[in-house]
Amino acid sequence: MDRDKILLTPGPLTTTLRTKLAMLRDWGSWDSDFNEVTARVRRSLLKVVHAEASHVVVPLQGSGTFSVEAAVATLVPRDGHVLVLDNGAYCKRAARLTTLMGRKCTVLEFGEATQVSAAALDEKLAADRTVTHVVLIHCETGAGVWNPLEAVAEVCARRDKGLIVDAMSSFGALPIDARETRFDALIAASGKCLEGVPGMGFVIVRKQVLQGCAGRSQSLAMDLHDQYVYMERTGQWRFTPPTHVVVALAEAIAQFEAEGGQPSRLARYTSNYQTLIHGMSRLGFMPFLDPAIQAPIIVTFHAPGDPRYEFKAFYSAARQCGFILYPGKLTQLETFRVGCIGAIGPTEMEQAVQAVALALENMGIASGEPAI
Amino acid sequence: MDRDKILLTPGPLTTTLRTKLAMLRDWGSWDSDFNEVTARVRRSLLKVVHAEASHVVVPLQGSGTFSVEAAVATLVPRDGHVLVLDNGAYCKRAARLTTLMGRKCTVLEFGEATQVSAAALDEKLAADRTVTHVVLIHCETGAGVWNPLEAVAEVCARRDKGLIVDAMSSFGALPIDARETRFDALIAASGKCLEGVPGMGFVIVRKQVLQGCAGRSQSLAMDLHDQYVYMERTGQWRFTPPTHVVVALAEAIAQFEAEGGQPSRLARYTSNYQTLIHGMSRLGFMPFLDPAIQAPIIVTFHAPGDPRYEFKAFYSAARQCGFILYPGKLTQLETFRVGCIGAIGPTEMEQAVQAVALALENMGIASGEPAI
Repeated sequence: MDRDKILLTPGPLTTTLRTKLAMLRDWGSWDSDFNEVTARVRRSLLKVVHAEASHVVVPLQGSGTFSVEAAVATLVPRDGHVLVLDNGAYCKRAARLTTLMGRKCTVLEFGEATQVSAAALDEKLAADRTVTHVVLIHCETGAGVWNPLEAVAEVCARRDKGLIVDAMSSFGALPIDARETRFDALIAASGKCLEGVPGMGFVIVRKQVLQGCAGRSQSLAMDLHDQYVYMERTGQWRFTPPTHVVVALAEAIAQFEAEGGQPSRLARYTSNYQTLIHGMSRLGFMPFLDPAIQAPIIVTFHAPGDPRYEFKAFYSAARQCGFILYPGKLTQLETFRVGCIGAIGPTEMEQAVQAVALALENMGIASGEPAI
Repeated sequence: MDRDKILLTPGPLTTTLRTKLAMLRDWGSWDSDFNEVTARVRRSLLKVVHAEASHVVVPLQGSGTFSVEAAVATLVPRDGHVLVLDNGAYCKRAARLTTLMGRKCTVLEFGEATQVSAAALDEKLAADRTVTHVVLIHCETGAGVWNPLEAVAEVCARRDKGLIVDAMSSFGALPIDARETRFDALIAASGKCLEGVPGMGFVIVRKQVLQGCAGRSQSLAMDLHDQYVYMERTGQWRFTPPTHVVVALAEAIAQFEAEGGQPSRLARYTSNYQTLIHGMSRLGFMPFLDPAIQAPIIVTFHAPGDPRYEFKAFYSAARQCGFILYPGKLTQLETFRVGCIGAIGPTEMEQAVQAVALALENMGIASGEPAI
């Protein structure tokens, strides 16, 4: 009766009991035991993207967006010029926070249903030489697009532009290799594909770049250079860390590594994704994106065309069957989203499809087929 | 063997098992169940300071400092002028973050061993009419001073200045009554005297004031007005909330209320404080502050004068006995700190004194008596 619902959302997501059990202890934030946990987490995160030789990890309190803002505030000089490659809601948020903090910001728009284009970026950078930094969202969670990180990084490296990658919902699942893909900063958070609980983000910053970043941030809390220098000197976080969240992340990473790291996580999520897609197709649902650009992280489906469909009722019906869906985030079309990530496998995805089938039935809807 | 150490620190602190057990569940941040938890927490926090009629609660991800920065960024206009009443490390931090974000900031200095003075504030405000906002730290955790909130608020109200109160380590323990004490913003966090786990802060803002604050913050993440408007409209946090931290706080607040609220918490902490002071006096230790201005929250002791004393060794020895002490934060004198807060009572404080006695003995130190 009181069984936990399964979260088919892009984070917070379903975590293992082992991860949550790690929170049953209180830690002193000044204590060496806790400092060791922080150090271990930072080392492990570097390894996930093969950045041991080139980068450092700077963790930060707050949600992932706090870390995105901190990366821009710390890396981009006050007279810098940021180009945001925009194909969705999270890109627009990055542009907004950049503009708000007073950095010049240009947006290069792509459609919500397409990848950003490295060729278009190349052209734009040729036309406007004042751009200093490019912001890319690796997996745009708005629709679920897998953006071409490697091609974008190649253009940035060739034209000597700083690249800031929001890898919030891809880190740990999609392959990223810092030895071959040059980026200045790559941002993710505890409660996404690493399957920790939410409450902290982290930024993987190129060492060479971070050295020159002292005094750039106008925010004390978001100054990653200051956080880094203090942490290197003392082993501690500058301000009170979310201790329970940090130890849960350490425990989640241990399970991530035992599972086989990023390749295994991608394999499981891909299997979740395929189970979902096949099951939803049987019910008549149509995914919004071309499968060729779809990341196996979160899938946007068109809302059913049946006039009896209404998201709130659909959500409630699926929820009663034990599954939490996610609303759509597209500007024009009615859609909903289903996450493939978290401590779940194809069995749970098949159950989720059954829950959706039951939800449709309860609403008297014969098929998930969209109107378009 | 594996028993949890007791944290005699100003947060993170020792929490109850019941509070931690609340974290053994995953919550969808979009789900109505979670929205209800957020709403309940917000209502309860208002009640603690009797601000139901006048203020609203805006929670924020991150450590308490994030909320302090957010309060200044959101409330103080860009051409505002902040006066920080400085008697310790956390005051200096508030001044630093104010200056960094580009707001004019003046510091009125008091000694670390004295309260800030409402009369001196009154004089300063008479001399400099450009000040728009005053920042006060209610309990300066640097030394442990209980600052005169009511007298400072009276001056600010009379001179029509905005008052921003950092009540990080006093909220829930020291009495604060918004019906009699006028403040624009009062800031605290989950992992302090409410005895939740760390990971979120909150700001109690006067309704009238918040209305005029749109567009002031240069930080998206720290914009309390934006957070508030979004939360009122949707019931949700703007960005991913630290769900487990929020539910732990809800559970901690339920225990706080069952215990009898702020008066009972103050009584327990006072009893902890007295047990500590008496026990430490027996060992020869001398508190740094005059008892008349000491809050029963965290106590600064002079380091023993014995040449064999060294903080690291002392810390380790107490730690081996199961107690985590806290280093001093004074600029000139060698000291250490002992917190009286958290889910502990006089029994634990007596045990802590025993642990300190044993630590001295192990170091071959006959008495805690300071050199001065």
